[in-house]
Amino acid sequence: MAEFSVDPYVELYARRTAGMSASEVRALFAVAARPEVVSLAGGMPYVQALPQEDVLSVVQEVLRTRQAESLQYGGGQGYPELRARLADLMAEEGAGADPESIIVTGGAQQALDLIGKVFIDPGDEIVVEAPSYVGALSAFSAYEPRYVSIAMDDDGMIVEELEEALVHGARPKFVYTVPNFNNPAGVTLSLSRREHLVSICREAGIPIVEDNPYGMLRFEGDRLPCLRQLDPENVIYLGTLSKVFSPGVRIGWVSAEPGVAQRLVQIKEAADLCTSSFMQLVSERYLAGDRWRANLATLVDAYRNRRDAMLTALDAHFPAEASWTTPAGGFYVWATLPVYLDATSMLAAAVDRRVAYVPGTAFYADGRGRDRMRLAFCYPTESDIEEGVRRLGTLLADEEALYRSLNP
Amino acid sequence: MAEFSVDPYVELYARRTAGMSASEVRALFAVAARPEVVSLAGGMPYVQALPQEDVLSVVQEVLRTRQAESLQYGGGQGYPELRARLADLMAEEGAGADPESIIVTGGAQQALDLIGKVFIDPGDEIVVEAPSYVGALSAFSAYEPRYVSIAMDDDGMIVEELEEALVHGARPKFVYTVPNFNNPAGVTLSLSRREHLVSICREAGIPIVEDNPYGMLRFEGDRLPCLRQLDPENVIYLGTLSKVFSPGVRIGWVSAEPGVAQRLVQIKEAADLCTSSFMQLVSERYLAGDRWRANLATLVDAYRNRRDAMLTALDAHFPAEASWTTPAGGFYVWATLPVYLDATSMLAAAVDRRVAYVPGTAFYADGRGRDRMRLAFCYPTESDIEEGVRRLGTLLADEEALYRSLNP
Repeated sequence: MAEFSVDPYVELYARRTAGMSASEVRALFAVAARPEVVSLAGGMPYVQALPQEDVLSVVQEVLRTRQAESLQYGGGQGYPELRARLADLMAEEGAGADPESIIVTGGAQQALDLIGKVFIDPGDEIVVEAPSYVGALSAFSAYEPRYVSIAMDDDGMIVEELEEALVHGARPKFVYTVPNFNNPAGVTLSLSRREHLVSICREAGIPIVEDNPYGMLRFEGDRLPCLRQLDPENVIYLGTLSKVFSPGVRIGWVSAEPGVAQRLVQIKEAADLCTSSFMQLVSERYLAGDRWRANLATLVDAYRNRRDAMLTALDAHFPAEASWTTPAGGFYVWATLPVYLDATSMLAAAVDRRVAYVPGTAFYADGRGRDRMRLAFCYPTESDIEEGVRRLGTLLADEEALYRSLNP
Repeated sequence: MAEFSVDPYVELYARRTAGMSASEVRALFAVAARPEVVSLAGGMPYVQALPQEDVLSVVQEVLRTRQAESLQYGGGQGYPELRARLADLMAEEGAGADPESIIVTGGAQQALDLIGKVFIDPGDEIVVEAPSYVGALSAFSAYEPRYVSIAMDDDGMIVEELEEALVHGARPKFVYTVPNFNNPAGVTLSLSRREHLVSICREAGIPIVEDNPYGMLRFEGDRLPCLRQLDPENVIYLGTLSKVFSPGVRIGWVSAEPGVAQRLVQIKEAADLCTSSFMQLVSERYLAGDRWRANLATLVDAYRNRRDAMLTALDAHFPAEASWTTPAGGFYVWATLPVYLDATSMLAAAVDRRVAYVPGTAFYADGRGRDRMRLAFCYPTESDIEEGVRRLGTLLADEEALYRSLNP
């Protein structure tokens, strides 16, 4: 695509597009898609593990029994049968829900966009974690909020800091959190913080947006109660089939109280009328049997092995001054480099050495994170993970040596 | 869902949600979905005409050859192979396009939403037709524009009125039009007006958004050049597979100049990451063969017969004082009632008599249209159309008699 400078419409674009440009990172990721590059960047699930027969049989069943419906428009809220299955999935995570409270969306990403659209006027405050899921920041930013960023540690969001911010006058429209196996931080919100969080938000009348894509990808330890389970009335819950089934079907959902749900349905219809009927009916059939449980178990085993491979490789190849989180589930390790290293400017050299990651700055609303990197273990094989981390470790050692030679 | 009055978040919603409520019309449509009601309301394509074998074979081919890809995330712009097919479709309508200019969207509805998001700041002017596609008004309204409504006649938008508005200081971000077989008006923009429209918009530096869902559903007469064909550089073109293939796959697209296209891709990624890979690959395979041409010809024949059935029934059953358009393609007849009748307040009685339509007010940004109704002939059979129009004609006659008895 051509340069912006020749664009005749440059005066016509909305204010929200001001920060958009063909970023350097975006260009590097295009290069990083080459097969010789080990990508620790993208959060692509290991869909190759899904047996062809399992998908083919449900698709054939849908076309045999409900072809006309599958090819037609559906209602904005989504198919009732699918919503019942999604409510069942929520119940498995301890957060039972009425199917009437559920709106099917184009992945959980669309749910984030719709929530931003329903709640945010320009200049409104919203609370996010620091770091936060980059896609949530992109979705919300289109509605021009002011971010209140709350730091995290190994027990997730430091809820005391949020309490402090509220005391000092923050009046957010909502609090956004990924409490389980956070993207990008890999950490999980502790039980006592969960209880504290729902309590202060209920007190202040601030809804919590609980985004839970990874909840079912636990490698060890006991499940913690969802925020939604702790306070069913003040938590807007987001789920997705991207990790349980497939991101290619683009099925996510949001479950919310009636006032929010009704607005979300209308905003959803204005945004794309409805989610694919075909993909909704296929997803419903996939969840109808028990095959999804066996397939999910296979995936969780694979992700656990890959997490282990990454942690072992980090121990072996990363410099002593670096640190990283130890996720008990999900897709990501979050690494902190020596402060004098810059993961953003280092990315080009990394891709040159045939390894890619996402620089930490992508995950902060305020420009922080230059000494951080997100390392995804979900997609590459264990040997590719070992090799990718090795390449990255060599680069870090070289950068460190260069820094020391310049700052003796 | 419960009443808004008990909603604890009522102070937290964004300004754009202010006009949203559980509308009476919405409630009536829920009733109108009952099988005994002849619905002349919804614009549902006649997907039953698609041979099961044609859909099954392409789905099987995708799963056999590209299952992992079909179940995985894809790029925000959409699959290159599908974009090439969509460019071919545009060429069939006389508007050749570079596949690089195309962004695959969740139906053309999402393209409308993304265009609103890229161009509209609150209070910005945009030009729409009066009447306009209700879904476009919903999509754009989320970004809080001021509408400049331009009237239509049997030759489409009265471009002289737009010229007048520009002379008097209107500075719209874009002009939105459905030039072929307009939804809801059924009319087609004449060639001389097309030339005039592209000329004044180019002169004024205002992009045209050409929404062309029905172009391939022509019943008679010669194709007119697309606006995009008349001015490739100043027309943002919207297409959809909803009428050529299926709305259930939710595949639409937008083709635009590089500056717009680049922003649309980023806005799209923030909105839902990507459109279903599965549905993109299935659509690509469907368009790869020639079966789509034969199936489309079958559909066009069916729609032509249904249009004829509706026009015949209107002649037979509608009052002498009513008038209606004669569409040469598409899905809709637009009827004008005697001014003393109110199609909005009459809808409940119509549903009671087992027939439904969309009241004209839905299609205006400024509350006009109470004496209009949109009658869709795409979905019901010819005999249902005859019966539905008969029921509606009887209602109109009764309402007319009532009016005359009260205003002798």
